[in-house]
Amino acid sequence: MTPMRDRDTALLTIDLDAIVANWRLIAARAAPAEAAAVVKADAYGLGAVRVAAALAAAGCRTFFVATIDEGLELRAVLPHPDIFVLSGVLPGPAGDITAAGLIPVLNSLEQAALWQGRAALHVDTGMARLGLEAAEIERLIADPGVLAGIDVDLVCSHLACADEDSAMNADQCQRFRLLADRLGLGRRRSLAASSGVFLGPAFHFDLVRPGAALYGVNPTPGRPNPMAQVVRLQGKILQVRDVDSPMTVGYGASHRCAGRGRVATVAVGYADGWLRALSNRGHGIIEGGRVPLVGRVSMDLITFDVSAVPASAAHAGATIELIGPGHDVDAVAAEAGTIGYEVLTALGRRYARSYVGGGV
Amino acid sequence: MTPMRDRDTALLTIDLDAIVANWRLIAARAAPAEAAAVVKADAYGLGAVRVAAALAAAGCRTFFVATIDEGLELRAVLPHPDIFVLSGVLPGPAGDITAAGLIPVLNSLEQAALWQGRAALHVDTGMARLGLEAAEIERLIADPGVLAGIDVDLVCSHLACADEDSAMNADQCQRFRLLADRLGLGRRRSLAASSGVFLGPAFHFDLVRPGAALYGVNPTPGRPNPMAQVVRLQGKILQVRDVDSPMTVGYGASHRCAGRGRVATVAVGYADGWLRALSNRGHGIIEGGRVPLVGRVSMDLITFDVSAVPASAAHAGATIELIGPGHDVDAVAAEAGTIGYEVLTALGRRYARSYVGGGV
Repeated sequence: MTPMRDRDTALLTIDLDAIVANWRLIAARAAPAEAAAVVKADAYGLGAVRVAAALAAAGCRTFFVATIDEGLELRAVLPHPDIFVLSGVLPGPAGDITAAGLIPVLNSLEQAALWQGRAALHVDTGMARLGLEAAEIERLIADPGVLAGIDVDLVCSHLACADEDSAMNADQCQRFRLLADRLGLGRRRSLAASSGVFLGPAFHFDLVRPGAALYGVNPTPGRPNPMAQVVRLQGKILQVRDVDSPMTVGYGASHRCAGRGRVATVAVGYADGWLRALSNRGHGIIEGGRVPLVGRVSMDLITFDVSAVPASAAHAGATIELIGPGHDVDAVAAEAGTIGYEVLTALGRRYARSYVGGGV
Repeated sequence: MTPMRDRDTALLTIDLDAIVANWRLIAARAAPAEAAAVVKADAYGLGAVRVAAALAAAGCRTFFVATIDEGLELRAVLPHPDIFVLSGVLPGPAGDITAAGLIPVLNSLEQAALWQGRAALHVDTGMARLGLEAAEIERLIADPGVLAGIDVDLVCSHLACADEDSAMNADQCQRFRLLADRLGLGRRRSLAASSGVFLGPAFHFDLVRPGAALYGVNPTPGRPNPMAQVVRLQGKILQVRDVDSPMTVGYGASHRCAGRGRVATVAVGYADGWLRALSNRGHGIIEGGRVPLVGRVSMDLITFDVSAVPASAAHAGATIELIGPGHDVDAVAAEAGTIGYEVLTALGRRYARSYVGGGV
């Protein structure tokens, strides 16, 4: 039984208990380091307010978001935890961030010059994306007064290849340790995100920052996924069509049905984040059986070849599972030629959403 | 001057006057056929309520949405226009759709059996996605009583290859005319969406249903775009980094900077709909000059090589144009290996949004 209303065309079920279990697994693995939770991008599309509330209830004391707006949204429901803002401060008044007690991650000396108070300091060790670059670090070591008025709580960095068995990981870890030692700043240190946690204790430092793994993405690609699955997506069949002569399906006539069979049209499309790259690729699951996606993904609709499924199962009003235990986020990502992170953050707004668990 | 607040990291500007101008251009081209407007998927990501209100003020009397929920959202602000629901009716009570005066597009005899009152009837002519199939049409011709109680306003179909110079277009058009004649149902007929309008008067029938073209997507790929541009997207630079030795950028170390230069990090990522397929592809525009995207698109950030741009232009707090007059939705789509429709519907929720025009 699902809480799908008659008029709903698709249902996204989010298991908050699984998210909490994943956080606990990582916290146990990283101990004595603290486990924070990364809930940026609306908790990777799953709803930051609901996810963070469940994690806070489970004992999580530290959250990371990407933008000031995300921090403000979280602060409105969670008055107590530390909320770090990864994009840091922007030129202009910092009143919003101060009033809400958000903690910026300072990514450059330019950002540091805009801030007074508690902060994290991000040193780049190989991403070349955000974080103090080598010349800035030397300048800071030569003149620590540059940070006058800033209370550096956390010194952090970010791994570029943590999900690969890359020599770059050890290099970045060593560089981070060396830089943090030379700087002599900060009460705590943090390097590892989801995959970094699984690289071993040398990567844990004082705080780990899991994101994707909390939401069920495998932090150890190529090895069994240690995380519980969080997301289930079911799309409703609008129509099942009998095919009894050679005919083409969908835009650009990109799929040709050879003979007799049945095609089911499901009310999910790329406007719902079912990436168009899944055209003529991937599959859904109905009654335990796989049904291949045929034709192009269109804006609001996808089509499956359900010839192998009994008509008693594949009919208008029945659902096809698009993401679930037998076909997880990583599997969908592989079919789309991307990563589970993008499959999650693309999840659309038209889905009916059902949260289960969360200790409430 | 933009209405970007200091804390905003990106701004999406939507030109309602351009949407209205595009609708008028299509209405003039399709006359004496009526021009409806397709505002499904939240008006292709641009905001259905704002877009539909502007078009209704300009004289548009008929709207198409994908789902019942979308129809209810629209009806709440527009009490008078016809609102057709493309997914039709689903098994279960039809109270929502009746109370709001929505008009379902009946896609099968199964759906027809669930409905009484005004409706559109969708006959399939080659999409094999939704719409009455051949056997159903024969059954209906043999026994028109199947539709007892249904007031067929519109008979419609949908072209599979309207954006290509395909023989399938004329075939579908001929089949549609023949089927509609044989059925002898409906006061009005509709076949053409955006691209179909530009296939010529034979495709116009009584009502055309433009969507993508209203939002600036070229309905005539390979030929100059007759539509006005609607969307501008600007991302704020968080940090500009000097590169003075060979180094890699981003996840997977997929881009290597050869020598001296500068890399700008912009606060837009795939969680904002900047598709990950744009990794190491595509570009932005700053001060009229093109800057290549380097490294992988990450969740909240992208990086550009700004070595060729003066430091006075590329600095923290400045913006890089990601979509705009010199780099439109179709150009971004080509770089991502997809279509403008997906670029639009993927546009994220973290952007500050500014609507201009719209007669208000």
